[in-house]
Amino acid sequence: MTDYASSGVNLDRAAAAKARIAAAARTTFGPQVLTDVGHFGGFFALSDSAADNVLVASADGVGTKLLLGIRLNRISGLGRDLVQHCINDILMCGARPLFFLDYMAFGKLDPEVAGTLAESLASACRDHGVALIGGETAEMPDLYEPGHFDLAGTIIGQVRRKHIFDGSRVKPGDVMIGLTSNGLHTNGYSLVRSVFAKEIADGSLEREHLSDGTSLADALMASHRCYLPSVGPLLENPALHALSHITGGGIEENTLRVVPKGVKLELNWSSWERPELYQIIQKRGQVPEDEMRRVFNLGIGVIVIVEPSSASEMLKALISKGEQAMIIGRVAA
Amino acid sequence: MTDYASSGVNLDRAAAAKARIAAAARTTFGPQVLTDVGHFGGFFALSDSAADNVLVASADGVGTKLLLGIRLNRISGLGRDLVQHCINDILMCGARPLFFLDYMAFGKLDPEVAGTLAESLASACRDHGVALIGGETAEMPDLYEPGHFDLAGTIIGQVRRKHIFDGSRVKPGDVMIGLTSNGLHTNGYSLVRSVFAKEIADGSLEREHLSDGTSLADALMASHRCYLPSVGPLLENPALHALSHITGGGIEENTLRVVPKGVKLELNWSSWERPELYQIIQKRGQVPEDEMRRVFNLGIGVIVIVEPSSASEMLKALISKGEQAMIIGRVAA
Repeated sequence: MTDYASSGVNLDRAAAAKARIAAAARTTFGPQVLTDVGHFGGFFALSDSAADNVLVASADGVGTKLLLGIRLNRISGLGRDLVQHCINDILMCGARPLFFLDYMAFGKLDPEVAGTLAESLASACRDHGVALIGGETAEMPDLYEPGHFDLAGTIIGQVRRKHIFDGSRVKPGDVMIGLTSNGLHTNGYSLVRSVFAKEIADGSLEREHLSDGTSLADALMASHRCYLPSVGPLLENPALHALSHITGGGIEENTLRVVPKGVKLELNWSSWERPELYQIIQKRGQVPEDEMRRVFNLGIGVIVIVEPSSASEMLKALISKGEQAMIIGRVAA
Repeated sequence: MTDYASSGVNLDRAAAAKARIAAAARTTFGPQVLTDVGHFGGFFALSDSAADNVLVASADGVGTKLLLGIRLNRISGLGRDLVQHCINDILMCGARPLFFLDYMAFGKLDPEVAGTLAESLASACRDHGVALIGGETAEMPDLYEPGHFDLAGTIIGQVRRKHIFDGSRVKPGDVMIGLTSNGLHTNGYSLVRSVFAKEIADGSLEREHLSDGTSLADALMASHRCYLPSVGPLLENPALHALSHITGGGIEENTLRVVPKGVKLELNWSSWERPELYQIIQKRGQVPEDEMRRVFNLGIGVIVIVEPSSASEMLKALISKGEQAMIIGRVAA
């Protein structure tokens, strides 16, 4: 049996650290900081914005997907993973992105790798109208092993104050629409690397295929999808009450971040087809179902919470934008 | 003889990587990005700012000062180092800080260490009126050794367009005023760790003292100074033409970033007393003088470039704000 703790990541210890970090951060908040810690982005009100715009910022990393990418010699999508993850995070707050800054750290700086990562970041930025205005490239011998690197970044976007999603609009009865993911996105890779340790070592990740012909290596390195093109046009629709990005913590934990305290989520876990990749991971690693739900997105990348009377209209609008979308549950008292 | 390359950091390889990164970044620039790559911060013009405010952003890390801090069990100032470094960077563009986001990455997340770092970040943020509105705390087994971590961050500030420093105001004849540093700040630590490898291993860094009684360990871990309190009040003074933050690359390379192409710097290297710490590093490591100048700030943390007729008035103003300041050179044709 493989779970996240045995593969080296402990989500409870993470929660303890985050509580202490949140307490420290709160001591720095003045009146321009609009919301508490815990949202998908931090909100900072500009004092001189004619349109009452609020900046929304979020930092993230690629996680150990990058170790798998290094091992499989497939690093050229990691910059896109990072940018699209970050765009999704602030999108959940109602914000559209403005600009991005990266942080790359190497044991021994490899200009070819740094260039490849930067071109991947820039390609995703261009696709979504984001300016890559800065970054830091650090060479830190003794911190990173030869061939290893870390990649993280920060995105800044903006939203009009009246269009902020801060959870307050969600009511019991609201409908949850799931938008499909494109694989694991950037979460669960320490567990996956543990489950497939043998296949990574002997190269069979490249030779094993899903029933649609995709190799496991390709399936595992698929890009983190960006939901801005499909969800962006709906941000000002008053029937849209909240958005949740399914990252570490899974469907329930991430969606509880964007609803009022006290409400419950009634998820119908069989309302969408769980992709084959998760079935292989679960079977091969004998991963308990609870752990699967806590670690992976299980095929749902974003959840859109909507006014019940507008659910079918929203579903249609999302499908017309190219989403595979379905109702996967509702909010209950 | 110890130089930076033999201690694992190659500044030429860094330049090659940065050229490729800059080319990628430029492909993302729209009309809201006001300046090219290479400044101490990236400039992004807000479209709806009544006061014509421009956002200025910069990302940075602590570098291998953190490995020395871990080894000496002195990590409680690393958050302050990072925040103050970042504030200085955007200050060089004329900007005052608004908010900050951090990135911490661990092999095994230690809530005590994460809390200590967050409290150090928050303490520096409070001192300078910066809101710590977000961050990412990652646990990445196999990327970081047990007990190791990385710490980086991004700062966002703003400046009115007419008060931007972009190098264009600097003219031959302008006077360079040096403001003293508080030790190495956050640069040159891979070289220092190599020079003092024996003293780090046998613990004598704690037992050896400078002539003023400070231990080498204390001197090496001294905080990166923040120049916002002394330089901030002068930002709108038209006699102030440019500011340079002396980080990796040293006095000349960093100051050439903020002056027009083609002008020269006439530095009088004997116009300030080089602190004892650098003399010890140079002697013990037999570090060539060129390398010392390329790697370390050598006692000067910030250079203020001013209109010649206002030099003595600016000097007085800086000294009245508590700076140890002196004229260290001039700009030549």
